[in-house]
This record gives sequence, C-alpha cells and structure tokens, in this order.
Amino acid sequence: MDNDKIRGILDSVRKGSVPVEDALRRLKDLPYEEMKFAKVDHHRHLRQGVPEVIFASGKTLEQVAAISRAMYKKSRSFLVTKATAAIYDAVGIKDAVFHPSSGVISVGGAKKKKGNVLVLTAGTSDMPVAEEAAVTAAFLGSRVSTVYDVGVAGLHRLMDTSGLLRKARVIVVVAGMEGALPSVVGGMTDKPIIAVPTSTGYGTSLGGLTALFAMLNSCVPGIAVMNIDNGFGAGCLAHKINTK
Amino acid sequence: MDNDKIRGILDSVRKGSVPVEDALRRLKDLPYEEMKFAKVDHHRHLRQGVPEVIFASGKTLEQVAAISRAMYKKSRSFLVTKATAAIYDAVGIKDAVFHPSSGVISVGGAKKKKGNVLVLTAGTSDMPVAEEAAVTAAFLGSRVSTVYDVGVAGLHRLMDTSGLLRKARVIVVVAGMEGALPSVVGGMTDKPIIAVPTSTGYGTSLGGLTALFAMLNSCVPGIAVMNIDNGFGAGCLAHKINTK
Amino acid sequence: MDNDKIRGILDSVRKGSVPVEDALRRLKDLPYEEMKFAKVDHHRHLRQGVPEVIFASGKTLEQVAAISRAMYKKSRSFLVTKATAAIYDAVGIKDAVFHPSSGVISVGGAKKKKGNVLVLTAGTSDMPVAEEAAVTAAFLGSRVSTVYDVGVAGLHRLMDTSGLLRKARVIVVVAGMEGALPSVVGGMTDKPIIAVPTSTGYGTSLGGLTALFAMLNSCVPGIAVMNIDNGFGAGCLAHKINTK
Amino acid sequence: MDNDKIRGILDSVRKGSVPVEDALRRLKDLPYEEMKFAKVDHHRHLRQGVPEVIFASGKTLEQVAAISRAMYKKSRSFLVTKATAAIYDAVGIKDAVFHPSSGVISVGGAKKKKGNVLVLTAGTSDMPVAEEAAVTAAFLGSRVSTVYDVGVAGLHRLMDTSGLLRKARVIVVVAGMEGALPSVVGGMTDKPIIAVPTSTGYGTSLGGLTALFAMLNSCVPGIAVMNIDNGFGAGCLAHKINTK
Amino acid sequence: MDNDKIRGILDSVRKGSVPVEDALRRLKDLPYEEMKFAKVDHHRHLRQGVPEVIFASGKTLEQVAAISRAMYKKSRSFLVTKATAAIYDAVGIKDAVFHPSSGVISVGGAKKKKGNVLVLTAGTSDMPVAEEAAVTAAFLGSRVSTVYDVGVAGLHRLMDTSGLLRKARVIVVVAGMEGALPSVVGGMTDKPIIAVPTSTGYGTSLGGLTALFAMLNSCVPGIAVMNIDNGFGAGCLAHKINTK
Amino acid sequence: MDNDKIRGILDSVRKGSVPVEDALRRLKDLPYEEMKFAKVDHHRHLRQGVPEVIFASGKTLEQVAAISRAMYKKSRSFLVTKATAAIYDAVGIKDAVFHPSSGVISVGGAKKKKGNVLVLTAGTSDMPVAEEAAVTAAFLGSRVSTVYDVGVAGLHRLMDTSGLLRKARVIVVVAGMEGALPSVVGGMTDKPIIAVPTSTGYGTSLGGLTALFAMLNSCVPGIAVMNIDNGFGAGCLAHKINTK
Amino acid sequence: MDNDKIRGILDSVRKGSVPVEDALRRLKDLPYEEMKFAKVDHHRHLRQGVPEVIFASGKTLEQVAAISRAMYKKSRSFLVTKATAAIYDAVGIKDAVFHPSSGVISVGGAKKKKGNVLVLTAGTSDMPVAEEAAVTAAFLGSRVSTVYDVGVAGLHRLMDTSGLLRKARVIVVVAGMEGALPSVVGGMTDKPIIAVPTSTGYGTSLGGLTALFAMLNSCVPGIAVMNIDNGFGAGCLAHKINTK
Amino acid sequence: MDNDKIRGILDSVRKGSVPVEDALRRLKDLPYEEMKFAKVDHHRHLRQGVPEVIFASGKTLEQVAAISRAMYKKSRSFLVTKATAAIYDAVGIKDAVFHPSSGVISVGGAKKKKGNVLVLTAGTSDMPVAEEAAVTAAFLGSRVSTVYDVGVAGLHRLMDTSGLLRKARVIVVVAGMEGALPSVVGGMTDKPIIAVPTSTGYGTSLGGLTALFAMLNSCVPGIAVMNIDNGFGAGCLAHKINTK
Repeated sequence: MDNDKIRGILDSVRKGSVPVEDALRRLKDLPYEEMKFAKVDHHRHLRQGVPEVIFASGKTLEQVAAISRAMYKKSRSFLVTKATAAIYDAVGIKDAVFHPSSGVISVGGAKKKKGNVLVLTAGTSDMPVAEEAAVTAAFLGSRVSTVYDVGVAGLHRLMDTSGLLRKARVIVVVAGMEGALPSVVGGMTDKPIIAVPTSTGYGTSLGGLTALFAMLNSCVPGIAVMNIDNGFGAGCLAHKINTK
Repeated sequence: MDNDKIRGILDSVRKGSVPVEDALRRLKDLPYEEMKFAKVDHHRHLRQGVPEVIFASGKTLEQVAAISRAMYKKSRSFLVTKATAAIYDAVGIKDAVFHPSSGVISVGGAKKKKGNVLVLTAGTSDMPVAEEAAVTAAFLGSRVSTVYDVGVAGLHRLMDTSGLLRKARVIVVVAGMEGALPSVVGGMTDKPIIAVPTSTGYGTSLGGLTALFAMLNSCVPGIAVMNIDNGFGAGCLAHKINTK
Repeated sequence: MDNDKIRGILDSVRKGSVPVEDALRRLKDLPYEEMKFAKVDHHRHLRQGVPEVIFASGKTLEQVAAISRAMYKKSRSFLVTKATAAIYDAVGIKDAVFHPSSGVISVGGAKKKKGNVLVLTAGTSDMPVAEEAAVTAAFLGSRVSTVYDVGVAGLHRLMDTSGLLRKARVIVVVAGMEGALPSVVGGMTDKPIIAVPTSTGYGTSLGGLTALFAMLNSCVPGIAVMNIDNGFGAGCLAHKINTK
Repeated sequence: MDNDKIRGILDSVRKGSVPVEDALRRLKDLPYEEMKFAKVDHHRHLRQGVPEVIFASGKTLEQVAAISRAMYKKSRSFLVTKATAAIYDAVGIKDAVFHPSSGVISVGGAKKKKGNVLVLTAGTSDMPVAEEAAVTAAFLGSRVSTVYDVGVAGLHRLMDTSGLLRKARVIVVVAGMEGALPSVVGGMTDKPIIAVPTSTGYGTSLGGLTALFAMLNSCVPGIAVMNIDNGFGAGCLAHKINTK
Repeated sequence: MDNDKIRGILDSVRKGSVPVEDALRRLKDLPYEEMKFAKVDHHRHLRQGVPEVIFASGKTLEQVAAISRAMYKKSRSFLVTKATAAIYDAVGIKDAVFHPSSGVISVGGAKKKKGNVLVLTAGTSDMPVAEEAAVTAAFLGSRVSTVYDVGVAGLHRLMDTSGLLRKARVIVVVAGMEGALPSVVGGMTDKPIIAVPTSTGYGTSLGGLTALFAMLNSCVPGIAVMNIDNGFGAGCLAHKINTK
Repeated sequence: MDNDKIRGILDSVRKGSVPVEDALRRLKDLPYEEMKFAKVDHHRHLRQGVPEVIFASGKTLEQVAAISRAMYKKSRSFLVTKATAAIYDAVGIKDAVFHPSSGVISVGGAKKKKGNVLVLTAGTSDMPVAEEAAVTAAFLGSRVSTVYDVGVAGLHRLMDTSGLLRKARVIVVVAGMEGALPSVVGGMTDKPIIAVPTSTGYGTSLGGLTALFAMLNSCVPGIAVMNIDNGFGAGCLAHKINTK
Repeated sequence: MDNDKIRGILDSVRKGSVPVEDALRRLKDLPYEEMKFAKVDHHRHLRQGVPEVIFASGKTLEQVAAISRAMYKKSRSFLVTKATAAIYDAVGIKDAVFHPSSGVISVGGAKKKKGNVLVLTAGTSDMPVAEEAAVTAAFLGSRVSTVYDVGVAGLHRLMDTSGLLRKARVIVVVAGMEGALPSVVGGMTDKPIIAVPTSTGYGTSLGGLTALFAMLNSCVPGIAVMNIDNGFGAGCLAHKINTK
Repeated sequence: MDNDKIRGILDSVRKGSVPVEDALRRLKDLPYEEMKFAKVDHHRHLRQGVPEVIFASGKTLEQVAAISRAMYKKSRSFLVTKATAAIYDAVGIKDAVFHPSSGVISVGGAKKKKGNVLVLTAGTSDMPVAEEAAVTAAFLGSRVSTVYDVGVAGLHRLMDTSGLLRKARVIVVVAGMEGALPSVVGGMTDKPIIAVPTSTGYGTSLGGLTALFAMLNSCVPGIAVMNIDNGFGAGCLAHKINTK
C-alpha cells in the first residue's frame, strides 16, 4: 500500500499535475506508516545522500558482506562500523577503504564537506573511538579536524587547541579513565560539546562506566554524553549539530 | 583586570624599569585567574547576557539567598535550580518568579527569544524535569514549546506532535521508566535529540539508571544523553544547539 | 515404592477394575513424592508428549551425548538448547536437526501444531534467541510465525505486522540494546506479550541488563519478562499460554 | 478528526448501512494514529469495559483527584494504584473502595468474573503486592482466589494448595527474600506462572533485586517475571492469560 | 626460637617429666607470635594431621609443583585446589590422585573418617564444586556421602534423600541459578546447612551472585553461606562442625 | 487428613499398642505434607521447646501483637526480632523483656543453657546485631558470652580474648566497615566461625556489602557468612553447631 | 625495642633479681597487648599529643557524651567527628568548639602547628568535608590553609592557588560530581595529593561513587584516594605526610 | 622555549618595536602549552631526573616500541608498565631489563637511592603488583625493601616484620581477597600506609572491588588507597612521600 500511495504521488509529479514542492510536502505528510518508510529510505536519500550504516558486531561475516554488497550496488556508498580486517576481506569491494584502528569500512559518502567539527582525545588509547567519530562525521558531510592526546594532566597541550576550539562549531571529546577532559574543555568554550567515554583503563574504570558517569556529572552544564566507545553516534550527532 | 596587570608589567619593561628576565618570571607567576575569569564572566556577559546559575542542592538557605541577592544587585538577572518554596522565601526578591513543579527561581533572562526548542515528556511525572529544561532554555534566549504525556504506549498522541517536530530545531525528550521515547521520536525526525532520563518509576527503574542506560543504548544513532533529572543541562545544551 | 503404587493402579486399569478416568485422577492425587515423580515424567508424556529438554551449557560433550542418546532410545524425541556443532556431532543421531544460529538440536516433537505464536525481533542480532523461542514452541506443539528486524527506529516495518498481531494468541518480542520494542508492540495490541532481552549491544548494554530492566519498567502493564537470551523459556511460556 | 471518523462509522451502524461486524473491523483498521486513540479508549470500553488506570506515585494529590473524578464522571469505573488514605480522601468519591494494605482504590470494574486466577504469597509481608494483583485481576473481570504465607520453608502449607493449583488457569506467585517459591510451585504444576518479586527483606535483598534475579534464573522454564512490587502488572497479565 | 621452646617442652615430654596433656596445654599457651607459628604448623599436625593446602589459582605451574613437592617430602600428605591436568603433570608425584571434575589433587589425608557429611547439588553442573567440598572434607577426616541433581523443580528426587538428611551431622547444599535448594532442604531438617552458590547459569545469574544473594536471604534462619564456587571452604567448615 | 493420621498414631500410643519410640519415628516418617507440618510445629516443640519466631519488619503493629499474644497463650514463650518500643507496647505482655539496642522481645525460651557460644564485635556500633545473636542463641538454649569492640586496629584487645576463644565451641564475629575481624580471629583458632557483616559505616561501606564480600573472601577457609545485620540467623546457626 | 625489653626481663631472671613467676607474667603482659595498647595510647600521647577520636555516627547521644567526658577528664583534649548540634549539647563541655558545617567537635589538640597542608575544594558543597579534613589536621598539629570553590570548569580560580601549591607539603583535594579536580591539580604540582570524593551531586553521582572511581582512575599517577566524604581520614594522612 | 618566546616579546617591548597593547594580545595568545610544557618536562628533569613512563596497555607493539626508543635516545632512561615479553622483544634495547612477573621494562632510572620504602603483600599472588610498585619506586630514586606473603591469617609472619616497619618511612601494602592487611598493619605503626587492592581471588572478590572497598573502609584512619592492581601509582606516591 505504501508503494501505491508513493507511486501515485510520483506519477502526478511526472504528469505535471502536482508541483514538486507540493509532492515533497505530501510525501512528508503521508499517513504515518508510509511516511516512516519514506523517512527512513527516500527521505534520507533525497535530503542527505546518506545510505544505511551497518553495525558489524553480532552479525556474521556473510551477513555483513551481503548487506554491504547490496548497498554498494544501490548507491556506491555505505559505512560499516566495528568491522575487522576479515570482514573487509569478506566484503571484497575494491573502492571500500578500511580504517583499521577504528574498524570502519567506508565507500562513497558526502562529497562536499561543510562546517567544522573538532575531535579531541585525552590519550592515545582513545584514538580508535575518535577516529570512528571523525570518519563518520566526514562521511556524512562535515569538515573534521582531530587533535589527539590532550589530557588534563598536561593542560598546556590542551591550550594549544584554543584556536581550533574557537573555529569549531561543535566539539567531540573522547576520554577514558576518569573522563575529566570534557569538563576542562567545557570551561574553555561555549560551543556544544559531545563527550564520548571509552573503555580505556583497568580495575575501577569498569569498562568505561567510570568515565561515562563522570561525564554525566560534569560541573559544566549542557554536555551531550554518548554510550561507551560510541564514536559512530558522536559522529552522527556532531554532523547534525554542525550542519543545522 | 588581567589586562591592567599585564599592561603594567609591559609598561615597566618598555620604560626599562623592569629587566626582561624579571618580567618573564612575573608573567609566569601572574595569577592566571583573571585572564580565565574574563573568559568565564565577561565573555558570557558580552556574548550571551547570561548571568551565573545557582544550583541550590547542598547549599544552605542562607548561602543561596546571599548569592542570589549579590547577582540580582549586579545584573537583575539569575536562575536558581532545584529550589524550594522555602528558598524562594529566603531569597525574598519580588521580581523573582518561582516555578514550583520544577523548583526553578528566575529573574530577568534573555528578552528576545530565538529559534525553536521542543520539549516532550513520556508521562506526567516527567513534567518537573521538562519544565526545568524549558524554563532554562527560555531564560537563555530560546523560544520553547512543550508537549507533555506522549509516551510510547500511546503512539497516536505522539503522532499529533509531528508538525511540531518539523518546526523544531532541537528536541528535548524527557522520560522515566523504560526510557523508550527518544528512540521512537528519533525514528520520526532527523533533528538533534537531547534525551533526559528521569527518576520516575520504582523497583528496577533504579532511580533513573534504567532509563539512562536505555537512552545510551538507543538504536537511533546520535542521541545526546543527559544525567538523570538534569533538565537544566538539557536546557543549556538545547539553547546552544538552537542558537548556533 | 512409587513404581509399585503406579504399577498397582495401572494393573487395576488393565484388569478393568478401575475406570481410566478414576485412575487418572488417582495418579494425580498420589501421595506427594510419587505424584511428583509422575508429574515430571508420565504426566508430561500422557498430556503433552514432551520429552525432557537438555540444557547443554556447563555439561561436557560426553554428558550431552549420553543423555541425548538415552532419550532418543526411549522416545525418539528430545530438544538440546545452547548446543554447538561439536555437540551435534558428538550426539551423532541422524534424525536430529541442528539449528546453527540458535544452537538448538531437535528430534521428534509434537506433530500437530496448534494456536498461533508470533515471534518478533528488534534487530538481526536478536535472531538466534528468537529462533530458540520459535523452535521450542513449535517442538512443544505450537504453530509459530516469525518476523525479524522490526525495531522502534523504523516504526513502518512494525506497522506491517499489525495483521499478524491480530492473528496471534501470544506474542514473543525479542530485543537487545534499549529494549523498547515490547512497549511499542504493547501499545498496539491487547494480547499477552512475552519480552526477551538479549545481550546484543556493547558498553552500557551491560550484557543485556539494560534491555531487561527497560522491559521490566515498561509503561505498558502486564508484560511477561524472561531472563537475558532465554529464548527457550519464552518458547515454553508462549506454548503454555497459546495452548491453554 | 478521530472523533469525526469514529462518529461516521457509528452513524452508519445506527442507520443499518454498515453491519456491526464490519464496523468493528473498520474501527480496528482505522489509520494508525486514530486507531491508536481508539485502542486506548473506545476499544477498551467496547471489549473490556476497562477504564484507564491511574498510577498515583509521582503525582500530586490534586492530580490524582482530578483525573479520578473525570473518569468517574465518564464511566463510574476506575482503578488507582499505589494510593494512600490521603489520596482516597482527596478523591472523595463515596462509591470508591480503598484497599489499605495494597493502596488500591477501585470503583466499578467488570461485573462478571470469568476463569480462575490463583494468587499465592511466600510470606505475610508479600500480601500488599498480592492484593494489588488480586484486586486488579478481579476488577478487569477475572475470578480470583488467594492463599497467603505458603513459603518454601514450610512445604506442607504449599501442599495444601495442590487442589487450588489444579483448578487455576494461571498462577501468580508473590515472594520476596530469596524468591524461591515460583520455582517450587513450577515443579508442581504445568500452568502458566507469573512471578512477582517484592522488596521484602533487608541487607542483600537489595530492595527486591535478589528475588527478581532468582525468579529470572528459575530452573523451571517459562516463568513470567514482573518488576519488583508490580502487583498491578501481574494482575493485568494474569487476566489476559486467564480470559484468552 | 619457637623451635627451641617447643623442643624444650617436647624433650620434657619425652623424659616423662611433663604429662602429654600438660604439654599440649602449654603448647597452646605459648607467647603469641610463636603460638601462632605453632598453630599454623605443629598445632595442625598434632591435632588433625592436616598439612597446608595449596590454592593453585594465580600461581605458576612451577610454584605449585615446588610447594607440592616440599610438602610431600615433609608429610606425604597435601591437597591442591583449583588445579588442572597440566598442574598435576608438573607436580609429578605418583601417589597423588587428580580429581578432574573438581580440579583437586590429593595425597594422603586423614585415614580414619568420622561423623557424617552429606553433600547435595541442585543440578549436574554443580557437581565440580560439590566434589571439591566432598574431597576436602574426606581428606580432613570426615565421612562423606553425596547426592547429585536434586533441584527444587523436582521435589520427589529430594524426598528420596530424607533418610540421608536424618543421618547427616551437617549438610552441604551446592546450587547455582536461583539458589533455592538450601531453603527447601532447610525446611526439611534442623541440621546445620552450608550453602555454596555456584557460577552455573547465564544472564542475570551474574556469575553466581544471584544464587549467593538468594542463599543469604533464605527464609530459613541460620544457613551458613560460602563464597561463589567455594567448595573447599564448605568442605573445611563441614569438617569442623562434623567433628566438633 | 494430617490431623487424622497424627490422631491415629497418638491414640495407638495412648492405648499402648505402639511404643513411644516407634510412634516418634512414624511421626517423622509421615507422608511428606504431614511430616512437614509436624516438623515445623510439633517436632520443634518436642525436641527443642522452641516456639515460632516473629520477624517484625514489614508487619503492622497489630499483626505482631496478635501473633505474639497467640503464641504466648499457647506456650508462654516466643521471640520477636527487629522490634521497636512501640511494638513492645502494642504486644503488652508483662513477662516479655525488650532488648532496646537489638530490638528483640523475648519471653520464656530454653531454661537450661548448654555449651559455649562466644560473640565478638569489631566496634561499638556492631553491638545491636551482636546482641540479637546473643539473645537468640541464649533463648534457644546456648550458654553465651560476649566481648565487644575488639577490632583489628587494636590487636591487643583481641589478644585478651584468647582464653575465651579456647573455651568456645563456636564463635560469632560481628563486624562492619572493612569486615576484617573474622579473618584475624580465624588465624587464632580452629573453631567454627560465623561472620556477620553489619551496615555500620558510610560511603563505600555500601550498607554492609563491603563487609559481606570481605568476609566471603576471607583468606581463612571455612568461615560461615550470614546476611547483613542478620544477628538472628547467626544466633540460630551458632546454637545448632553448639548443641550438636 | 621489643627484643630489648624481653632480653632485659630474661637477664633479670638469670641474675635472680626477678622470680620466674613474675617474669612469666610480665612476658605475657608485655608482649603484644600492652605494646599495642601503648601504641594506641601512650605512644600517641608522647609523640603527638593526640587523644582518641570519637566517630559519632551509629552511637547514641549518651555514648558519645560519656566517652567525650571521660576523655576530657583524662587529657582535656579530644575530637568528635560526624557530630550534630544535639550531640554537642549532650557533651556539654564549655571548652569544646563545635564546627557546624563539618560536624566536628574539638577541644585541645596540638598547640604547635608544623609544616603546611593545603586543602582545596571543587565547589561550595564540598566544604563540610574539607573543613573536617582541615580541623583534623590542625588538631593533630599541622599548619593548614584552605581554598574553596576552585573547580575545573573555571581554571582561572585554580591558577590563583599556584603559589599556595608551591608552598604546601601535601595537598588535600575535595571534590564531588565528576571528581576531576585532583587530576588537574596533579598536572600542576609534584606534591603528594590526597583526593577525597564527596557525595555531592545527584542521579549518576551515585552518592559519591562516580567521583571516587574517577579519582582512582586519574591519569596522574600516585594520587592517594580516601573513602567518600572521609575528611577525617584525609586530615590524618595529610598530617602524617606533612610531619614526616 | 617558552622562555625564549616570552623573552622575545618582552625584548621587543623594551626596544619599543612592539606597542604594549600588541604585546598584551600576543602574550594572551601565546601557546599556553609551552609555559605548561616547561612544567611537565623541564621541571621534572631538573628536579627529579624522571623521564616519562609508558603505560603499555591499549597501545600496539609498534607504538610502545617507538615511544620507548625515542625516550631511550633522549635520556637513556625510561619505564614501561603492564608490558609483556613480546613488547620487550619489540622494544629491542639491550640495556633494558624486563621484570616478567610485574610486566615492567626499565632502563636507567635514579642512581642514588634515598629513604626507605617497605612493600608488603598478603599472598604470593599479590607479588606482581608489589613488584611493580617496588621497581617503580626504586627507579624514581627510593630505597625499597619487600616482604611477601604476610597475610592476616598468619599474624606471626607479620610480627616478624615489626623491625622493618619501624625503619620504613612509608609502607605499601598489597592485598587481594578481603583486603584486610592494611588495617592490621595500620594498627601496628603510625607510618603513612599506601594500600593497593589486587584482582586476586574469585567469585565475590569482584575483580578486586571487594579488596578496594574494604581498604577504603578501613577502621584505621588515614590509609591512602590506590586503584586495583595499580602498583605503578603506589610506587610513585611512595616515592613522593619517602623523598619529601
């Protein structure tokens, strides 16, 4: 039924009986079930050129490969997160680039980069998650710069970034252990900050829960917090804010 | 004041009354504070007209009253969060408005409202936190609309908000219990979403931890999560994104 | 002693001195210890044709194989859960079918399927647990249909299932991450819902605890919740409700 | 608009131009948003005579009283859970009955009781939760019987219930502390069991988490578990299964 | 210095100038630091013939082998817990017996068995821990009998043990999952019960914490609880109570 | 039916046709349900003179008073734990003694005290729990001595107890905070030790969980651990071991 | 020194100046208990003029008052922590000073202050704990200076303290919420840092656990961490390090 | 370098080639870093001769090797913690020493050892962490002695260390399981104590959390607690206190 309704509107557009702008609004206003269908697929294609993203964890090699190839066929553009070299080999698409430290596979993506997303990490161990955020935001169409290893125990390195902080429209801060970096960065800027806790550390780092809770309890108001190691989510949110 | 002190040293150097090496040492020992102080205060005043905000929890009646009055004297504008009627009485400023359900006291604030922040709640018990977010964002200068009680068990009520979703620049979703509302709203829009878990519920709601973790694990990528019951933080972040 | 008492009753039945209906009631009313014995074994055989089920986790290959073969010898019918290909090989029974994604081995089972159990999953990673539930319920005698990947972030796919929801007598909803699907399904139907949290996800999914707690806190009243990844239990309960 | 559509269908029914069965199906098939509305209100009224239920926790006296009175006006029938004597007084409706131990206020409810729900508790401290379940199921239209204080440390008392177990269509087992009763009852019957953990106990009872986890880990497969102290949810589920 | 004092006392004993009972009392009354030394070594040798026990976890193959051989040299008698076949090979003592399911290596031990310790398990997966308890208690000098797989879901099997319960002086109950067995056994006997939770189970069994907390919250008063999987500790305590 | 069977046996005893010893054995061997009934009530009365114990927490004043008076009427002997002065007043029995620090009410109890139970506490804040254990064990018939405030930070005070340690048949060690005392006492004696964690402390004492876990992990093997603040359970177990 | 004392006694025995029985008694009384006692009491008096400290939590008004008065009588000097105004009144000693924000009562204490302890807090809500640390260290004999409200979100205020940091011999950092301050201070100095988490905050501050875990995971190596709100412990440790 | 830049600006001011206002702006914009950088690097080099330390966990073989070689080139002195034999091989520096049990690689370090740090462990399994502390403190310039295996269950072995306790300036106590050793040592000395919990144990040792919490709750005031298994941090803090 969805298809029929959408086809009807598109036919009208083809015949010229419905102006494009009207059709667009009607597609958005379609009774819920169809609208949803449109939103997830057509809507995204029309407005952002963003194909689906594949979360590789918990899927078999074959599943990831099959979905990837189907997407590649449709749009020459997709993103796989939490991938491994074995998955990359199984996908077997020449154009695809594998980012080994973040486990991201990407093909295509937005060609024109806009705005300015800054990604910071507290330590070198936080780099994979930061890279996942950076690759994602860039893929979606954001201009991204990254500065790694600017933890709170060496404030001077952080100070170096003050110029970049001023230029950024949104700042992603990736930190494990005690998760203090977002608070300190938050005291230096009034830009929106997205904090990503990582599972870096041992003992009472509790697999990233300590950093997560520290970030949620930041004395700087209004910091957006992501799930542990969720660089992909941070990249998406950063892009949304950046390109508003 | 920073500037005056530094300028004084430089003047002395220029006049030759202070040797370069001495100036160097004194510059290093300069109270860092004032330079930073400028960032925290003047910076905010110049750019946002935002006075300090007082978090009433864990402060005595007298402390809150004293800080409030000092701020009022300076700028006729301040916000107190997590306040009670008793605190409001102790503050004793006629212009101040007390929002009893959210426990916010406000005076002044931004006069011109910009953009569009939409605040949704899953249930009526989530209203105090939502109101804290709404009052905060409005105080900072955002135009805010609120829709309460649109939980996932009655999707039809949520559907009624689709027009508002399209108009909003950023959406704050407040929910307790299973915290599912942000995921469902996230499937209906591509606007930035700020999720605020509340301590509503009992038993395994674990004082809001269940809603918090559910939100952090949303299948919709890129949802910004706040601390439990942190309407104030949500209001700040919503305003930052809204007025970017 | 159990055996003697039961044998006595059965002898009387054989001789015609006790009508079958009386014997049946007496078997049910046997002094506790024997009645229990009957309940676990004969009772099940008489009423449901259900052989014992073997939980493979924490047992050696040899233990599972030995119990399986003993059961096969007795009834040509059994179910092994949480099995692996290695266990399947060790069991070495030709008739047995191995369901690799759910780790279930089955032989025999109920021949006539009754009623209607619907099994839904939020994502593709939840399929193994869903399949365990589906295979179990079918083995016990329920007619089962399954729909995978109808998560809350794409409500339109869920809407497509409304016809199936109306036909089902009981609905099993399998979901990881934020565990929101049962609440949304619960808002669409008044059928009994069995929610199964899965350990899908990472970070604060806490191995499925987040989905579990979200389901227990559903704003829809009366959802039955199972242990994490417990597809087998869900299949049993679904069958009990379906065939009441 | 909902109202208009529904009114149109009902008018057609009144005029005889649409048979009742057709109208019923069309009401169910109403475009989603309206159907949802219908489901929550009219649907329930048509099929179950069940008005909304008010969860008093986290609402003010005034809120509960206002909603209660509005419901009473509309249907002379409603249920309030987690209420107090003060709430009962504030509601001020003569017909309403207050069940002090469970904190339930009820008026009206289903007149004809069907089927057979058995509610058991492990100890006397579990009675309030059990009563909440019993009152709820009875209000919704189930015939309910209750047996209190049949904990596992005195199996003989449990044995006395074997006759009741056989007669029941569904069994609600309420237990705190170690939460062992559902497992023991589950070994005595093949009826669907709904287990409700209570916050009874101290120290490592962890406010009911210990009983909850014990129930989720029952060695008896297929036990439905509710949130801690959630007698209302158990009553709803019991009624759904009982009246299938 | 210990040695000198002890040797002096022993010399007097040898010469007959001090009666054995006096010497024994004097050895117990030795100034603290030495008494402690005596207590750990000689004291144990004199009264129980119990050599040190080696906890293999967290020690290297070489460490376990060296300590084992030293002990064997001194007394031809020792116990290793949480051992593996590799450790057994490294120890390389022909007389030593390896119990593979419990990971215990034993040589020597008490020759005369006294009293009566009964070890029960809820399931077959609990057998390794039960065997560790049984081997330990027997090694220390207790007569031990074991009954496996008498879980609460099949009470009839438990009933068969009533004779054994009456004969036992102390009962060790080993159970994982919901940990309900000690409560049920506790309702059948007034003998001291030692409950040992095991890490059997998955999901919310939380590695044995659920069973542990259930046992600590038993509605039967006076159950002694051990650490998770701590069969060795249970064996020691059972022996102490049994041989009082 | 219970009553009939028991009455039959007792009649036979009265007539002299069944010797007392035989009757006693038969009462113990009564089909399960009755045997259990006998065990809980008559059995205890016959062998221990122990009436039921009432756990006051979670019961109303009226409930405790009613049960207490019923018991008093039957046997002039009962124990109430976790009581308050208000409960004591409500009970209103002159003979009853109220132990305010432990919240125990006792009347009657065993007249002859046997054996030797030693109760130690680490600090003065642990005294209420220790007293609950001491009063319980004495009520049940154990001779009890108590030494308070012998924590590990002042070993010299503990050394003073070495004479008492030697005389005791079983030792109850009550400790909060880090819960180290049982380990230290365990290094000084080979008597059975019952460790009771208390909720004394703040912050990371986690309401007694820290002491509980420390005790479960004691490097001294074979320490029996009780639930947090469970002095009553410790008293019961101590009495069972003491009077074996 | 132990050895010397023991050797002295033995020499006296050899010379005949001390009868054997006397020597024996003295050996028993020397060793451990008095030595320990001396350590606790005389040792402290001689070296530090430190009387016992009373932890008021979990003690009755009467207990605190009695111990306080006994100590006052003996030494005119004592400290009570976690006290209230009611306790202060009950103690009723004129010389005693009550510090209401920290709940400390003090009389006497060291007259000469040595070294330099710096106490910092992140926020004003952390002041009570900081004051407890400061009063304790001063009482024990340390010179103490305090700077409040220098949290990481306003680094400039922290910079002001750089002079004080250089002068301090040990630094106590008190912080709640995300507990980031010790890390930032640790990047500015190489002095020993004692971090004290406070229970300031709400939601996921988890009563101070978040700050505690953050501090334990500091990226600055070698920070000493105290229990939540344990200002007294921090004061003791600071004094020990300061006066080494 | 900082100095050079600042000096350059000041020189220009002195010469009049740069106006005061320009200099002021440039001083504010000066990369903060270098000033800070001086603190982190030169400061440490000048005062302590301490090179950077590399935390190997979460870094690739290549990263550790590259950083190590760079440091070795600069100063012939560095420390790697949590290393493996494979890392040691990858580093490939002949002078470097690998401590296999603690996983530390060290080259160079302080030549002159000062003061006296005593490192104690409760068991042999705690040795790796203790060795990490000892190697670190020695590397930084502290004289270190170690005594292993002096747990609380054998106090006599601990007594043997009393001479060492008196000679030490600071004591590191490493313990897993119930973590009681620091409390007992704390009762024997007034020296600063640094407690390090280890992940030794199983079940409710909770990976070291039990020992950690026990140490934080020690009844001995003023014990410094480290993160689980954090021997490196303990070595750093011990050195700071030792060489004050």
